[in-house]
Amino acid sequence: MKRSERLVAMTHYLLEHPHGLVSLPFFTEKFDSAKSSVSEDMTIINVMFQQLGIGELHTVSGAAGGVKFVPSQSVENSERFVDQLAHQLEDPARILPGGYLFMSDLLGDPHTVKQIGQLFATYFAETEIDVVITVATKGIPLAYAVASFLNVPVVIVRRDPKVTEGSTVSINYVSGSSRKIQTMVLPKRSLSEGANVLIVDDFMKAGGTINGMKSLLKEFNAHVAGIGVLAEAEDEEEERVVQDYVSLLQIQHVDEREQRIDIVRGNYFQS
Amino acid sequence: MKRSERLVAMTHYLLEHPHGLVSLPFFTEKFDSAKSSVSEDMTIINVMFQQLGIGELHTVSGAAGGVKFVPSQSVENSERFVDQLAHQLEDPARILPGGYLFMSDLLGDPHTVKQIGQLFATYFAETEIDVVITVATKGIPLAYAVASFLNVPVVIVRRDPKVTEGSTVSINYVSGSSRKIQTMVLPKRSLSEGANVLIVDDFMKAGGTINGMKSLLKEFNAHVAGIGVLAEAEDEEEERVVQDYVSLLQIQHVDEREQRIDIVRGNYFQS
Repeated sequence: MKRSERLVAMTHYLLEHPHGLVSLPFFTEKFDSAKSSVSEDMTIINVMFQQLGIGELHTVSGAAGGVKFVPSQSVENSERFVDQLAHQLEDPARILPGGYLFMSDLLGDPHTVKQIGQLFATYFAETEIDVVITVATKGIPLAYAVASFLNVPVVIVRRDPKVTEGSTVSINYVSGSSRKIQTMVLPKRSLSEGANVLIVDDFMKAGGTINGMKSLLKEFNAHVAGIGVLAEAEDEEEERVVQDYVSLLQIQHVDEREQRIDIVRGNYFQS
Repeated sequence: MKRSERLVAMTHYLLEHPHGLVSLPFFTEKFDSAKSSVSEDMTIINVMFQQLGIGELHTVSGAAGGVKFVPSQSVENSERFVDQLAHQLEDPARILPGGYLFMSDLLGDPHTVKQIGQLFATYFAETEIDVVITVATKGIPLAYAVASFLNVPVVIVRRDPKVTEGSTVSINYVSGSSRKIQTMVLPKRSLSEGANVLIVDDFMKAGGTINGMKSLLKEFNAHVAGIGVLAEAEDEEEERVVQDYVSLLQIQHVDEREQRIDIVRGNYFQS
């Protein structure tokens, strides 16, 4: 196979298999090409991926070694994306009764969702993660986007058990904002003992929902490897019950009367 | 920029922007390359994409013309994927009380979900679609996967209104299987008048839920451009209320006593 054709095929394969280890023989056999040629292709792809700001190829040496595409988003791209997202969210037409913000249109755009996923995947690229967890409904697309880049499965926590889930483990927790007692359930066969879990959600105020997920994970003896939220909001009356999280956006102020929203970059950019 | 580098960058760009029209000048400027070189690159990429069975580049002529990557999955790849999925689902350990099948693990795998999305995107590649719609919860990842390949947004129907959605339109419908009256809501600002909508869901028995979505769409004067379900199940006691759908899998028989499941290819493969 010609180099030009190999480059197209390899670029496609690597983009489709992030965080997956590919042995050199896999490519040499697939493309019927010499090891030296495939190695040179890898170098070209690695340089271009870094130039495009989408990640890089990591070489794993040894007998079981190979190459691994680790997706990441450059700081420059990330800042531009988040600033643009903040700008879109500051539109006063988004203000809903109670000072909530309408975000469904942005979360409904697969391209935006993918970019959010890429940012969290960048942040947690070096963290040991076995599964991404979220609670229905709005966090679901974000969880899949992150999981897709990290090459791990998604598990969805529900508010109510469903017959199609089999036996479930359920907990009650106190919602931070409303102080109401709520329920969360997770199918018994969805998580293995000791799994490293990344919690992803769209929004966090006091953190009651995320705290609920943490309690639920305890029931499975799972380990919380990280917490990522798209937007966090300040809540004067409540003390935040979750501390160790990463946010892309911080909603500082939603003024219904003055129709004004202030959104800044989240703590993602503070490290 | 060298051809080898351009091929990596263009392959990445096209894969990231399915169904998006790219003008030739966009690439010549981006890569500081001659029109003839970029044209040759396009030919190489087009041939390889077809050889990989992942789609092809369509040329749109005229002043506003350019090239468009239309993703599709080859029949061979599709059949192999669906047969494997059927095989995985036929595992008796999946049988739940009531003859339901546990599918959450498969729907929790981003790679599987992506492939399902690709199949529906192949089927509806030539259909005018403005938005993909699904009902919470299990259809959500599938809807995003399809929408991502079709380059359109996703809208999620809920069972209950939420304060973060703003004002909503709601309908009552009769669930086909249980004959219970249920509710569905959709935020008022989520759909524009006359939109062409593709309905996607994970499972269909009598079709009550999908029929509910159709009624809801009527309230928005939206047009149902297509219906895609991952798995359909036969239901002897009910008459199916939805006819014009496409399914990847057909669950023919779930025998709790004999611990036996029969699954065949859906009507996707009958055309």
